[in-house]
Amino acid sequence: MDSGKKRWAGRFASGPDARSEAYTASIGFDTRLIFEDLRGSVAHVRMLGKQGIIAPDEAAEIERGLWLIWDEAEAGTLEFTLSDEDVHSGVERRLRELIGPVQGKLHTGRSRNDQVINDVRLWTKRAVLRLTGGLIDLVEALLGLAGDHAETIMPGFTHTQRAQPVTLGHHLLAYVSMFERDLDRFQQSYARMDRSALGSSAMAGTTYPIDRTFVAEDLGFGGITRNSMDAIADRDLVLDTLYGCAMVAMHCSRLCEELVWWSSGEIRYVTFDDAFATGSSIMPQKKNPDVAELTRGKTGRVYGHLTGMLTVMKGLPLTYNSDMQEDKQALFDSVDTIEAILDVLPPALESLTFNADRMAAAAGADFSLATDAADLLSKRGVPFREAHEVVGRLVKTCVDSGRNFEDLSVDEWTAVHPVFAEERPPLTAAESVAARDIPGGTAPNRVRAALGAARERSSDVRAWHAREDQRLSNVMKRNSTGPE
Amino acid sequence: MDSGKKRWAGRFASGPDARSEAYTASIGFDTRLIFEDLRGSVAHVRMLGKQGIIAPDEAAEIERGLWLIWDEAEAGTLEFTLSDEDVHSGVERRLRELIGPVQGKLHTGRSRNDQVINDVRLWTKRAVLRLTGGLIDLVEALLGLAGDHAETIMPGFTHTQRAQPVTLGHHLLAYVSMFERDLDRFQQSYARMDRSALGSSAMAGTTYPIDRTFVAEDLGFGGITRNSMDAIADRDLVLDTLYGCAMVAMHCSRLCEELVWWSSGEIRYVTFDDAFATGSSIMPQKKNPDVAELTRGKTGRVYGHLTGMLTVMKGLPLTYNSDMQEDKQALFDSVDTIEAILDVLPPALESLTFNADRMAAAAGADFSLATDAADLLSKRGVPFREAHEVVGRLVKTCVDSGRNFEDLSVDEWTAVHPVFAEERPPLTAAESVAARDIPGGTAPNRVRAALGAARERSSDVRAWHAREDQRLSNVMKRNSTGPE
Amino acid sequence: MDSGKKRWAGRFASGPDARSEAYTASIGFDTRLIFEDLRGSVAHVRMLGKQGIIAPDEAAEIERGLWLIWDEAEAGTLEFTLSDEDVHSGVERRLRELIGPVQGKLHTGRSRNDQVINDVRLWTKRAVLRLTGGLIDLVEALLGLAGDHAETIMPGFTHTQRAQPVTLGHHLLAYVSMFERDLDRFQQSYARMDRSALGSSAMAGTTYPIDRTFVAEDLGFGGITRNSMDAIADRDLVLDTLYGCAMVAMHCSRLCEELVWWSSGEIRYVTFDDAFATGSSIMPQKKNPDVAELTRGKTGRVYGHLTGMLTVMKGLPLTYNSDMQEDKQALFDSVDTIEAILDVLPPALESLTFNADRMAAAAGADFSLATDAADLLSKRGVPFREAHEVVGRLVKTCVDSGRNFEDLSVDEWTAVHPVFAEERPPLTAAESVAARDIPGGTAPNRVRAALGAARERSSDVRAWHAREDQRLSNVMKRNSTGPE
Amino acid sequence: MDSGKKRWAGRFASGPDARSEAYTASIGFDTRLIFEDLRGSVAHVRMLGKQGIIAPDEAAEIERGLWLIWDEAEAGTLEFTLSDEDVHSGVERRLRELIGPVQGKLHTGRSRNDQVINDVRLWTKRAVLRLTGGLIDLVEALLGLAGDHAETIMPGFTHTQRAQPVTLGHHLLAYVSMFERDLDRFQQSYARMDRSALGSSAMAGTTYPIDRTFVAEDLGFGGITRNSMDAIADRDLVLDTLYGCAMVAMHCSRLCEELVWWSSGEIRYVTFDDAFATGSSIMPQKKNPDVAELTRGKTGRVYGHLTGMLTVMKGLPLTYNSDMQEDKQALFDSVDTIEAILDVLPPALESLTFNADRMAAAAGADFSLATDAADLLSKRGVPFREAHEVVGRLVKTCVDSGRNFEDLSVDEWTAVHPVFAEERPPLTAAESVAARDIPGGTAPNRVRAALGAARERSSDVRAWHAREDQRLSNVMKRNSTGPE
Repeated sequence: MDSGKKRWAGRFASGPDARSEAYTASIGFDTRLIFEDLRGSVAHVRMLGKQGIIAPDEAAEIERGLWLIWDEAEAGTLEFTLSDEDVHSGVERRLRELIGPVQGKLHTGRSRNDQVINDVRLWTKRAVLRLTGGLIDLVEALLGLAGDHAETIMPGFTHTQRAQPVTLGHHLLAYVSMFERDLDRFQQSYARMDRSALGSSAMAGTTYPIDRTFVAEDLGFGGITRNSMDAIADRDLVLDTLYGCAMVAMHCSRLCEELVWWSSGEIRYVTFDDAFATGSSIMPQKKNPDVAELTRGKTGRVYGHLTGMLTVMKGLPLTYNSDMQEDKQALFDSVDTIEAILDVLPPALESLTFNADRMAAAAGADFSLATDAADLLSKRGVPFREAHEVVGRLVKTCVDSGRNFEDLSVDEWTAVHPVFAEERPPLTAAESVAARDIPGGTAPNRVRAALGAARERSSDVRAWHAREDQRLSNVMKRNSTGPE
Repeated sequence: MDSGKKRWAGRFASGPDARSEAYTASIGFDTRLIFEDLRGSVAHVRMLGKQGIIAPDEAAEIERGLWLIWDEAEAGTLEFTLSDEDVHSGVERRLRELIGPVQGKLHTGRSRNDQVINDVRLWTKRAVLRLTGGLIDLVEALLGLAGDHAETIMPGFTHTQRAQPVTLGHHLLAYVSMFERDLDRFQQSYARMDRSALGSSAMAGTTYPIDRTFVAEDLGFGGITRNSMDAIADRDLVLDTLYGCAMVAMHCSRLCEELVWWSSGEIRYVTFDDAFATGSSIMPQKKNPDVAELTRGKTGRVYGHLTGMLTVMKGLPLTYNSDMQEDKQALFDSVDTIEAILDVLPPALESLTFNADRMAAAAGADFSLATDAADLLSKRGVPFREAHEVVGRLVKTCVDSGRNFEDLSVDEWTAVHPVFAEERPPLTAAESVAARDIPGGTAPNRVRAALGAARERSSDVRAWHAREDQRLSNVMKRNSTGPE
Repeated sequence: MDSGKKRWAGRFASGPDARSEAYTASIGFDTRLIFEDLRGSVAHVRMLGKQGIIAPDEAAEIERGLWLIWDEAEAGTLEFTLSDEDVHSGVERRLRELIGPVQGKLHTGRSRNDQVINDVRLWTKRAVLRLTGGLIDLVEALLGLAGDHAETIMPGFTHTQRAQPVTLGHHLLAYVSMFERDLDRFQQSYARMDRSALGSSAMAGTTYPIDRTFVAEDLGFGGITRNSMDAIADRDLVLDTLYGCAMVAMHCSRLCEELVWWSSGEIRYVTFDDAFATGSSIMPQKKNPDVAELTRGKTGRVYGHLTGMLTVMKGLPLTYNSDMQEDKQALFDSVDTIEAILDVLPPALESLTFNADRMAAAAGADFSLATDAADLLSKRGVPFREAHEVVGRLVKTCVDSGRNFEDLSVDEWTAVHPVFAEERPPLTAAESVAARDIPGGTAPNRVRAALGAARERSSDVRAWHAREDQRLSNVMKRNSTGPE
Repeated sequence: MDSGKKRWAGRFASGPDARSEAYTASIGFDTRLIFEDLRGSVAHVRMLGKQGIIAPDEAAEIERGLWLIWDEAEAGTLEFTLSDEDVHSGVERRLRELIGPVQGKLHTGRSRNDQVINDVRLWTKRAVLRLTGGLIDLVEALLGLAGDHAETIMPGFTHTQRAQPVTLGHHLLAYVSMFERDLDRFQQSYARMDRSALGSSAMAGTTYPIDRTFVAEDLGFGGITRNSMDAIADRDLVLDTLYGCAMVAMHCSRLCEELVWWSSGEIRYVTFDDAFATGSSIMPQKKNPDVAELTRGKTGRVYGHLTGMLTVMKGLPLTYNSDMQEDKQALFDSVDTIEAILDVLPPALESLTFNADRMAAAAGADFSLATDAADLLSKRGVPFREAHEVVGRLVKTCVDSGRNFEDLSVDEWTAVHPVFAEERPPLTAAESVAARDIPGGTAPNRVRAALGAARERSSDVRAWHAREDQRLSNVMKRNSTGPE
């Protein structure tokens, strides 16, 4: 067999047209699976030897060759060409160069179809662990900031309008809740994808007496897939990952939208450190929140990959179709994008300087305590709807006359409603914040309690992460013998 | 207070411009939340009474009024107008008409912001239960068919080309695996959304001594949300549901793509019953697989809603913004679409007549047993790569001379490879299928085992569904007193 | 023929299953095509009579019946039921009730396939005219504001940071340029869809001696489609319209993002009139820029419809498939959404009060004139890169010492660079703006020139709009005899 | 100035954090703009010299340096590093190395903002010309095939069911119509983007007496942009290109869906040449329509890029924001993808072997001539609805008894309807096809006429393409002096 010939070419009268070969090759991007591919082959060949499907010494020789290629890949000396078509064929070609025809026994009881999806499963598991690791870092950066600002007063917004005072710590913990849900999603999809597909072969299973569970365990999988056709036809694990990435991007884009505007000359609630900002080629004074803008922008590409992959899978008959080759670039780029975001955001956040004075001043302005005034009336028996109306009219009067609540005399308050003769609503944002003392509320003691609970949850998820990470690191080691 | 006036209008000098009012009103679609809204208000007012925030008799009177509106809604006599703005204001207006100014105390310690998202949570929980119920029906319809066809031989496909024989039962179980993952996703997102947001108020929590847990329990929620700002700013539960719907649609579109083509005059593997097909206005002979086509097509709208809602949430600052009002139609339409699909697909599938003879004939044709021939050589010591090459050349020879494997004499087999002198590969699809006897493989005994395991899982998830459904049905009953 | 029976049911043994009938019916939404459908049938039957395919008196009788249904539709008394399946069958059923069996001749030489796409073409042409009309209104509203503010100084932004001063008129004209491109796109897609598909029949053309051009002219089309199969399989006109809508939404979302933030308590560059704002159910002081937020949010649904319809059409074989029935709701809702936006935005924009003082103050602040300083050096022979560096350092010095350019003495300027001994850069935003006196620049005279040119273009496109609108209005009139 | 320092760093106290630098750099992908960037700088510096903004000999020296970099880029010796940030800064750095500080004058009156968008405009114009060139090739390949098959009978499909016979040539011309619309769209967006943005500077224009029209003409642009802020804020040209690409992909995906299924073992209407097919790693007999599958699949990524870029631009305030840096990879990859498709599809199509016998046999089967039978009745005065019903019942009778129309005796025909006593409908597909002799119909003479007209249009668009291509080639030549 000519090593330049396609490994599937027996029935073909002619070789591929050059345009067709270039068009259909995936070697340009699937080399990212090289270590997963090699490791999967090691597990497969060990099983072939153990089951006596090939001779144990043949299995050992093939495994030896695979680790040689591993070394080459680590050293950066492994090279592929377009005629290798994909990473799997490239590895076969190189293996034959290194150990000769016995290489031909590696593919016994296996197809590229189950090989590629198993590589993708292993790669994605590792990717999801990197992403969850990054999310934990981000959560902890936010917890750190929230701890610093558990009592920092700022305006809480609805409709981008000042609504009621809150603490910055409470605001930041809202983001912690979002990223915790993202962690939850990734942990669940991790568990769902944690099954070895090897043994599904082309899509019908195989006639060899293979041991699928042995392979799964050697590769650190929690189990095996249930249906050989589904195993080959399924790309849910890719979509779950893309969706998980899209949600992380969306949450980050919200945070960054705030940082972009808050760092504007108009608002000035926050300043980026010079190390996390960029300048202008023409305007000497400019300092741009580039990291935050780009993060917001990168949401687009991640959404796009999700849309793209949903489109690819729509209406595809069973089982494998080449359309599905399009899964990898979307997956790689989405993971890379989110990893980059999770790499830069924690230090960028930690570099921020918040302008507590401006925030505090704004928190009390614009009648942000009007709800407290209505609440006071309501607590004294005025139906809330009426209280709202009364205070609304008072706001209008003040707006029309250019005054604030604190400018009003007791007589003026009393004229608004007799209840105010006895008692006036709180006039500072800090009082208003402290009064919101319910579970999930913004009162500083509640924020500190929430912070403590979040720290515990973060510590739990970090323990899970460390455990799985260790397990997979053991698998993906030179001459690894399995997850233990 | 003029009941025609907006309930927020105290500070406004003028009423809304008619174009603005029509543009911003959500009453055209959010009336679908009427029962959730009423029930949420009932729980809220009960808590207000219990906590002494309003007088118990006031609470009782308000609750009485709410159930009156419930009756009207059930009877179809409840009417809203554009000036009601949204279902929440509409209910307030009607309540005032029924019970007078005490209605004004209902809104104590609550905002439209936490009210609407809690309604959405309750509605979506019920929707997800309907969807999971439909998925279980679909799974069971597939299990029924798979049971009928555990031994029905058909071609297994890769690249839409005949690859290796499989059983129809195995093929159908691949879809069961997909829908099981969909169920898994919905159960997980159900658990994630199962928290009451009431008490978050406008976004900062409230100053009243409310009991959030009481409300949550009365409404059948598993707990309360952790951060008042996140509770108001978050629409992850909507996105999780849209993503879950998109995945169901994608899986259904694959099944339907197959049914459309399989029912073509060219393929004829399957026939729809007349009751699940449509005709042509011009061509008297036509019988169209309309149900399957439409299902494939409806994937588009569901993908679109997911894209749309991801777009809405991208870059939104905290907490509530009116952009988020756009969540409801996407949610309602996605749920309706998937419900309709899950309503029609099970009976449509059960109406199918499979043409087992055509399938069986095709399963053995086109050299579908070539892999078995290569496997035979490999089992006798020929490296698989060489075996593949040898058989590939044999296929080419046959194709060129218009023959099949069964047309070859023993001498011809022997000429191909000496191993074939002793032994020939299986020549029937049934033998080939039976030999794929590994976990997840297509051999009939494996298919029957898989079927049994799937039935058990289905029964488990149905039990979960019945339990949750009962719980929510108890909550959503006239004069309900809670989930028990 | 039983009028309750499907018109295609001849070959069917049984009627449809109720679930299947409900699932496949489009009568729930395609009744919006009623007038286009009737008018198309009128043109078709006139042609049948003229060509002698049916007797002229039969043609006249059918046309009479169609106009009776037109009257009923206008009066709101026309009713359809689910068993009507779609608007086309509903009209046939009603026509038979009105004029008896001669109705059966209407469908001669026509199929639902060419009928529905021709209805959609006519409907979409009318819709595009409404959208272009709305865009012209929006452009003119912006031109009016830009005229008022040709000299109003404000900060120009890059990266949401103050960059260089501009005029508000110039800023608003940037939006005019966007909407002009939207108009351009719609005019081009209008021309592309302006061809009658009738005569394509089921997809192969027809055997009757029909006159396609006569029908096209009677319906005001500019020509006929070229290929009967493409005519039936094509939905490009829907996609072009959805893309055009998505671009309008995107441009509007940018404008509204600015208005939302500019109306915040932090920025206060603009105030919405009370008539175009909404309040809060709990916070008496709130005034929310609801119109702008919703417009930004509605971008999501329009993007979603584009994604959805692209998904529907992906990989569909020729010619008609029921998947394509999904085009209508996406189309209707996108057009409705953009129409609503274009209805409310012009008056909302005209209701704005700009805070010119705050804008002007901000325009000169934050070293916005630093580029002018660098330009001055550069004009005196300092390479721009060096000038940028010099001024950048100056900015840093000022920031560190809390000063602005205007706080610097001549000696301090000179210390920065000797050029400044002779000459200092402009220190007012107005000078800076006036100096940007190049084509497309922000100097007030350039803005006024741009305004004049835009007004001329607007007048041209309005003339085109009026012409086409008149043409189509003539067609769509009771007892119309064609576009003249 | 330290050449390793950022060119905007004057006001910055510290250099960028390494993570921030890596995150924000675009040098990893925007080097694709190198020739456009150099050529744009050449035009700019020529103008600076001509206007006397810098000395003519300085301009000449800078231009000389730019062409030296051009040579390095062509030779592949030009290298950039991460600290170059983007291609524009990289060129500046290299230019300074080559010609010293006079380089610093190149950036006079220009910003990266107008520089980058002008580069993108020039790049996209060239890209659109490549795409239109590829589309013309595809159209001509289809016209060639359609010419070969103007009389080849095949089944025409609706609902993937045989509907009425057509010719293969007619079917292929339907695709020509689609790609003609794609050409139309690209020509229109080409014209819309054909304006030079240089002179818009950071976004406000510039204070130097520049000549924007001179630059535009030197670069082969048809004019200049109208508003400096829009010029910087606008990415419509990118979106128009992405949409155009999405539509091409969609049309190609439909063609490829047909080819995939038509090449299946079930249908066998077409065979790919071995040179445009691939094999299986495990199944020796497989021959997969990989090119067609991948083309269908690549639709996903192109849709994804459109969604992604629409997301990026949604709600962005004016003018430049770093989010927009995300435009390039979406643009590049979409163009590359469509180019690759348009490169491989024409030869792949020309490699097809159609199985005319199978197609012809299918075209007459399944009562495909039932419409002709109903038409015959209708032409003899039976209302079409009744004729449809009569023939529908006849089809049912035949289906139930396993017969076809040609199996019926004259008596049996007469029993169906007296008209059939005199005359029977056509019983061959060829007769049926020939009878569809109307404009746009499938009769062979109509197909040949349509083919002739399409060839003329193709020749016209090719002439346009050649003209523009020449113009841009002249501009993008070493030491070019402009488009003439």
